Amino acid sequence: MRTLEPGSTIGVLGGGQLGRMIALAAAQLGFKTHIFCPELDNPAQQVADQVTHAEYDDIDALSKFANAVDVVTYEFENIPVSTVETLSSKKPVFPNSRILKVSQDRLQEKMFLNDLAIDTAPFKGVSSVEEALSALEVISYPAVIKTRRFGYDGKGQAIVKRAEDVLAAWNNLTSDQNIIEGFIDFDMEISVIGVRSQDGVVKCYCPVENKHKNHILDISIAPAAIDEEIKKTAIDQATKILNTIDYVGVMTVEFFVSSHAPKLRVNEIAPRVHNSGHWTIEACPSSQFEQHVRAICGLPLGETDFKGQAQMTNLIGDDILQYEKLLAEGRANVHHYGKKEIRAGRKMGHVTRLYDHKD
Amino acid sequence: MRTLEPGSTIGVLGGGQLGRMIALAAAQLGFKTHIFCPELDNPAQQVADQVTHAEYDDIDALSKFANAVDVVTYEFENIPVSTVETLSSKKPVFPNSRILKVSQDRLQEKMFLNDLAIDTAPFKGVSSVEEALSALEVISYPAVIKTRRFGYDGKGQAIVKRAEDVLAAWNNLTSDQNIIEGFIDFDMEISVIGVRSQDGVVKCYCPVENKHKNHILDISIAPAAIDEEIKKTAIDQATKILNTIDYVGVMTVEFFVSSHAPKLRVNEIAPRVHNSGHWTIEACPSSQFEQHVRAICGLPLGETDFKGQAQMTNLIGDDILQYEKLLAEGRANVHHYGKKEIRAGRKMGHVTRLYDHKD
Repeated sequence: MRTLEPGSTIGVLGGGQLGRMIALAAAQLGFKTHIFCPELDNPAQQVADQVTHAEYDDIDALSKFANAVDVVTYEFENIPVSTVETLSSKKPVFPNSRILKVSQDRLQEKMFLNDLAIDTAPFKGVSSVEEALSALEVISYPAVIKTRRFGYDGKGQAIVKRAEDVLAAWNNLTSDQNIIEGFIDFDMEISVIGVRSQDGVVKCYCPVENKHKNHILDISIAPAAIDEEIKKTAIDQATKILNTIDYVGVMTVEFFVSSHAPKLRVNEIAPRVHNSGHWTIEACPSSQFEQHVRAICGLPLGETDFKGQAQMTNLIGDDILQYEKLLAEGRANVHHYGKKEIRAGRKMGHVTRLYDHKD
Repeated sequence: MRTLEPGSTIGVLGGGQLGRMIALAAAQLGFKTHIFCPELDNPAQQVADQVTHAEYDDIDALSKFANAVDVVTYEFENIPVSTVETLSSKKPVFPNSRILKVSQDRLQEKMFLNDLAIDTAPFKGVSSVEEALSALEVISYPAVIKTRRFGYDGKGQAIVKRAEDVLAAWNNLTSDQNIIEGFIDFDMEISVIGVRSQDGVVKCYCPVENKHKNHILDISIAPAAIDEEIKKTAIDQATKILNTIDYVGVMTVEFFVSSHAPKLRVNEIAPRVHNSGHWTIEACPSSQFEQHVRAICGLPLGETDFKGQAQMTNLIGDDILQYEKLLAEGRANVHHYGKKEIRAGRKMGHVTRLYDHKD
């Protein structure tokens, strides 16, 4: 285990709100943050010690960045693997590039999970309309057709209800390396935020229920109203993924929960802190952001327990105009990401409300 | 009330840990911070959007700073009043300069408090050894002799036990504008952190007990173990001070508690967020830092209630070497101020531990 002294600098690839909240947690623990991202105006640099504005494939800029920091992490999973590998030759990068390779490709991700005896939706990789049509005969309609790579918040995917939909859906996709996923008739989507330290200790927060609106996370409710067996299985599976891949840092695993077997299927893995873990800032002894910093800096993990109930609501687009009204509630924990321009679908902030445990 | 939009910039005079924690709270609410301080290497700028390195009497730098920010505040009370007045001509400054004038002068402060029918130690302003000796005959020994201005953490003061001590004590002081304060035989020192909004709403946290070591705050315990009447009087007096002076932002009032009348005497006023309020970060719906930001930005205040028990311990000098051990506790809230050099007596960080309420 390589422990960093406070005062060291954490390099973060990406300058969004997740990078911003990592920087705030790092600051509490005495670490400096250096943000690397192409965007000139980004939420994270406002609270970071240093910023490098460059493209993720700018080898010179990456090299200087690596020299200026003590450890590197990232706030989104669509970082080119080559970027992480370039940086890894100079400084430790957590999480490692193996999880990036897996999570950037929906096909590899599902194969990896099934190899661990973790259920997913039925799937098949396809590279032509013809392959898609024959895969759909096996998987059956309705199904979802998605690009294998770089999907985020519902972009790059379409539901196909019948064979006649396939050609149009296919032509709308930006790639011909795609995947067909069987449509899962689930009761609830949950996620488990887990963290693994450099010496292999794993801690998970209680699973939370996630509700979406327009394919974007709307609300997370902690704890999710699921039975103990589902809870235990979800946490066991997240732990297995973390250990298998020698993961360091915070990882998020999204699951579909059904009343019929298999009751639990992994939807996707996000190798990073996650929107569905924002409630941990106020609710838990150590937040997902602090845990991530602890893990990548080689420090002991904090506790993840939570006795009450919490609800995190995203403030998307115009929702942020409720800002002052939310502050007037007095005990709502309002987070504003410092983004100038309000745009439809843009995550502008979130609010977490804590409630006492109902016995 | 002048409400600032999130995205606005808060100018902070001073770059210490209090400025740092104001900046972190400002960031959560979507505000940028611009630090103004002479020190090139300071804890606050690591998490601030902008920094100006200049002396507090540099009119040009102050003018540029005022143009670059939307509101100004300060993290310590020894800012020259002329600095605040220069800035006030361009941008709102909270708290106002009136409280600075009062709190920078121990004599004026005590006269101001007595005028409000708030008890203090007996005192007398003195400007020569002779005046000191005659004042001490009235106030009686032991007493404390202090400079009227710019005292902090026990600097610029001495206990005099008998007339023979006075000359040596006097010659050690850096000024001849001094004050004699009667020695108060108190049972406990407490403080009340209060906040007042631009529209005159006042909220106070529960009084906390403060224990010192080597004249530096060591531990704050919330809530202080005092009876309801003392608690109510302390909060009433803090509220009266806030209202009298049309104060905006967080103010701290330190009291001595005795078993004999007057049971409560104000020791001093700090027109700022305070070390004895750090426990509010984790323990209360809205921390002292968030409240200060809300108040100066013209936003509604948050709630201040607290049901459990909290203990904040300062990490002074070498105490910070316990950093990793404290993190290993798992539920200790460790704060490291990002200061490079460990020096004896230097506030390097703090740790807050929360406990359930003992019924």
